[in-house]
Amino acid sequence: MHIELKRGSSAKLYVQIALTIADRIRSGLIEPGTRLPSVRKMTADLGVSLVTVTKAYAELEAIQLICCSQGKGCYVTGSRDSAQVTRTKEDSAGTVHRKGSSDSGTALDWQMTLIDYLPRAQLWRHFDVSPQVRYELHMSAIQPELLPTRDIIDSAYYLTSDHTERMAAYGSFQGDWELRQTFAAHFTSRGLQAAPERMLITSGAQQGIDLVARTFVGPGDVVYMEAPTYTGAIDVFTSRGAKIITVPMDDEGMRIDLLTRLCDTYAPKLIYTVPTYHNPTGITMSARRRAQLLNIAQSYHCLILEDDPFADLYFHEPPPASIKSMDSAGHVVYIKSFSKVLSPGCRIACAIADGSVLTRLVAAKSTADLGSPLMTQKALQTYIHHQYDVYVHELREKLYARLCAASKVLDEHAAKAMQWRLPDGGLNLWLELHGSFDMHELHRQSLAAGVSFLPGSACFVGESDTPSLRICFTVTSEQALRQGLITLCSVIERYTSQQAGLAADRLPLI
Amino acid sequence: MHIELKRGSSAKLYVQIALTIADRIRSGLIEPGTRLPSVRKMTADLGVSLVTVTKAYAELEAIQLICCSQGKGCYVTGSRDSAQVTRTKEDSAGTVHRKGSSDSGTALDWQMTLIDYLPRAQLWRHFDVSPQVRYELHMSAIQPELLPTRDIIDSAYYLTSDHTERMAAYGSFQGDWELRQTFAAHFTSRGLQAAPERMLITSGAQQGIDLVARTFVGPGDVVYMEAPTYTGAIDVFTSRGAKIITVPMDDEGMRIDLLTRLCDTYAPKLIYTVPTYHNPTGITMSARRRAQLLNIAQSYHCLILEDDPFADLYFHEPPPASIKSMDSAGHVVYIKSFSKVLSPGCRIACAIADGSVLTRLVAAKSTADLGSPLMTQKALQTYIHHQYDVYVHELREKLYARLCAASKVLDEHAAKAMQWRLPDGGLNLWLELHGSFDMHELHRQSLAAGVSFLPGSACFVGESDTPSLRICFTVTSEQALRQGLITLCSVIERYTSQQAGLAADRLPLI
Repeated sequence: MHIELKRGSSAKLYVQIALTIADRIRSGLIEPGTRLPSVRKMTADLGVSLVTVTKAYAELEAIQLICCSQGKGCYVTGSRDSAQVTRTKEDSAGTVHRKGSSDSGTALDWQMTLIDYLPRAQLWRHFDVSPQVRYELHMSAIQPELLPTRDIIDSAYYLTSDHTERMAAYGSFQGDWELRQTFAAHFTSRGLQAAPERMLITSGAQQGIDLVARTFVGPGDVVYMEAPTYTGAIDVFTSRGAKIITVPMDDEGMRIDLLTRLCDTYAPKLIYTVPTYHNPTGITMSARRRAQLLNIAQSYHCLILEDDPFADLYFHEPPPASIKSMDSAGHVVYIKSFSKVLSPGCRIACAIADGSVLTRLVAAKSTADLGSPLMTQKALQTYIHHQYDVYVHELREKLYARLCAASKVLDEHAAKAMQWRLPDGGLNLWLELHGSFDMHELHRQSLAAGVSFLPGSACFVGESDTPSLRICFTVTSEQALRQGLITLCSVIERYTSQQAGLAADRLPLI
Repeated sequence: MHIELKRGSSAKLYVQIALTIADRIRSGLIEPGTRLPSVRKMTADLGVSLVTVTKAYAELEAIQLICCSQGKGCYVTGSRDSAQVTRTKEDSAGTVHRKGSSDSGTALDWQMTLIDYLPRAQLWRHFDVSPQVRYELHMSAIQPELLPTRDIIDSAYYLTSDHTERMAAYGSFQGDWELRQTFAAHFTSRGLQAAPERMLITSGAQQGIDLVARTFVGPGDVVYMEAPTYTGAIDVFTSRGAKIITVPMDDEGMRIDLLTRLCDTYAPKLIYTVPTYHNPTGITMSARRRAQLLNIAQSYHCLILEDDPFADLYFHEPPPASIKSMDSAGHVVYIKSFSKVLSPGCRIACAIADGSVLTRLVAAKSTADLGSPLMTQKALQTYIHHQYDVYVHELREKLYARLCAASKVLDEHAAKAMQWRLPDGGLNLWLELHGSFDMHELHRQSLAAGVSFLPGSACFVGESDTPSLRICFTVTSEQALRQGLITLCSVIERYTSQQAGLAADRLPLI
């Protein structure tokens, strides 16, 4: 087991070790019944003291993730919240088994010694939910019924039919030329001048972020992110061994004053931001801060990764211009996902970059997968060209109606401990809880009551157990949203009164 | 510029530095006109002596890739073979500019100081060819006219139409369940028992290789590969900082006797092999060696990555059973690409793995791109289920006819220096040249004469300039294949007589 220890970090080593192992157990990466390496072996592998490993294991035992007995060692007991999931839906019946007993027997035991480089996989951990969940509010997406899937399938068919021979050949690593032309017109109409030559088509924004990270971020490189931020981006930068520093936010977005001071000490290699309808908080970075951020990148000769999935989904006024639109010296890699707004199943995003930054990203794309499939690229081309603007105009109204419904439920049913602010666009609502919460327990209770959410801890680099959560108000029907939110409010209410009735028990660290 | 130096290697440091920079210039990653870091800066960055960097730059100047002048520094002159390519075809008109003068001016100059982690991008470098090439024999693929593209597009349409709502949602990270069921039946009929639960759908074999590498291979981990081997796999393992050790081949495939001895000194983390109709040599590993290889993996608790794109493309007898089919303890990750045989544009491959190795690969896939597009997965499902076997039966005959045509041309026209062996299946023909060859010059002359090939150097880890090359005999029409091969033979003939007429000039090292 490869555990990346941050020795300068404020988190104690035993907490770091315990957190990493806990995450892997909860994700199903270490299966129930697995024997952990002995304290002595772990001590040697990690180069830490016996006491450190002993304390880490004690911590894991205290929260019942492992069970240790003298002479026999420590075994994973299995976690009840997410590890035992086997989805019942037909389309995911074949999901990797994450169930109690491993039927593969002892032949595979050697694999436990196989070191890997997957320090964090929170995205994967939180993707599936248990079958008893009726109200899936954890995933940031748009209800399928609102998406133009029928039109996209038809346009894929007609366009690919016209280009049968091209479909049979390897496409360009950089992406289909006609799709890039379509994107160029699309972005230009939104104030972002971008020639097709400056674009790279990626398989969703997730791959775009991953390509930037694998190309420009290596062990120890300093990456700044908002706190909280997008789970999948944390997974990526962590996997590259980056030194991630998070910057708090206020109503104007990332605190540039703090960032400036931090940069004095830790020069940035890359600054990752979701400036518009930020994931998960919904906050929009002001135009002033955007300009300041670009200034910092210019001063430090570093990159900004501007992740912009939601800009078209404003409810009142359009958001400020993108940072990329102000970028004259190639500091910004701009990534626009079309997955969420049009078709999660097509996995298409567009990255815009300049100079050798773009060239290197195209080379990385070739190493990663030889280019995105032509069929899904063609699927979006006609739709974006002819129908997107009308579609998105109507979509905004529908999404806003969902937000209003959510707002109404919260006004009427929210527990005292809950606090939120309504976003001006996007898909997410960030709820903060005041008081002491064991978020794992609250999450468990909520899932048991039939409502899923994304625990706030998944959005923080240290996974510190901040009492917060993200729900998506656009992923279910309006009725399911209402019912799910009412249930969630009552779960939180019940939890807080339980807590009030209990003595202040020891809350677990992890 | 990040240059990974192998200090224990037999290749001298100055050669390693010069090779890396040469590769980047030839790939277009460093554009013509760019000023290289000063000798003094490079010396400090790499922690080597002034003499080493000076010799590396002198080597690059000798082959005219850079031009140095006192006081002004060293500038990239631009290479004539591949860097100046701008494709004329409509479908790639938007390829990244790799042309002479950079029109982006000095605003982007800072990017040169941006360190990246792309030590090698040979796949990208050799993908595009110049517009004067009439006979493209460099890419390993099947002529579009032989592929069932029309049927695949239709089946994508009908299946996705039946599942509109599912197309509108995120799919499973692991891949569509029905496609995995189809693959299970497909593999079972070929003697490989693989339940859908053990599969991961990837975006082509390239992504499968990349996922295995990013999950299990880190800096200094020992990876064994055949020499020569698949270019794209070298790119991937190099990008992970692996210590790559190559093992020569004979008629039975990888020399297991040598591998065994090497493993005594350098314990393997992973062994990468293309056992059937090996890329690029076409050699097939014997059943005996396959069993021995598996034995080694069991002894060392390491992984085998079995890359198997060609097994269905046999010309006489089916090849020996896959290594995976003998694997009882989860040592083998088996990757089967359907890109080459069915549809390069769909980018679909299937990885089979066991236990936590599979689980970790699925988690890595989530971090990389959230799962492959559902549309392209659905596109292959029906075709593989109903039509694949009949199709591939006919395809084999067609491909064999191409090989016979190539063989006939070579028998009649081959230059004396050329040597080859006919493969029993697959798409590739490996040509070895005897004598002293400046392969860059030969490649240039061949491209100028209208024929592309893959220089053998791209298939070796050290890119040592072995006089060899790979052509694909299935990518063009039979007529183009004949004409291209005749031209290639005459280019080689002409080159050798030129050389005989010249004094034994200094051949460049790189």
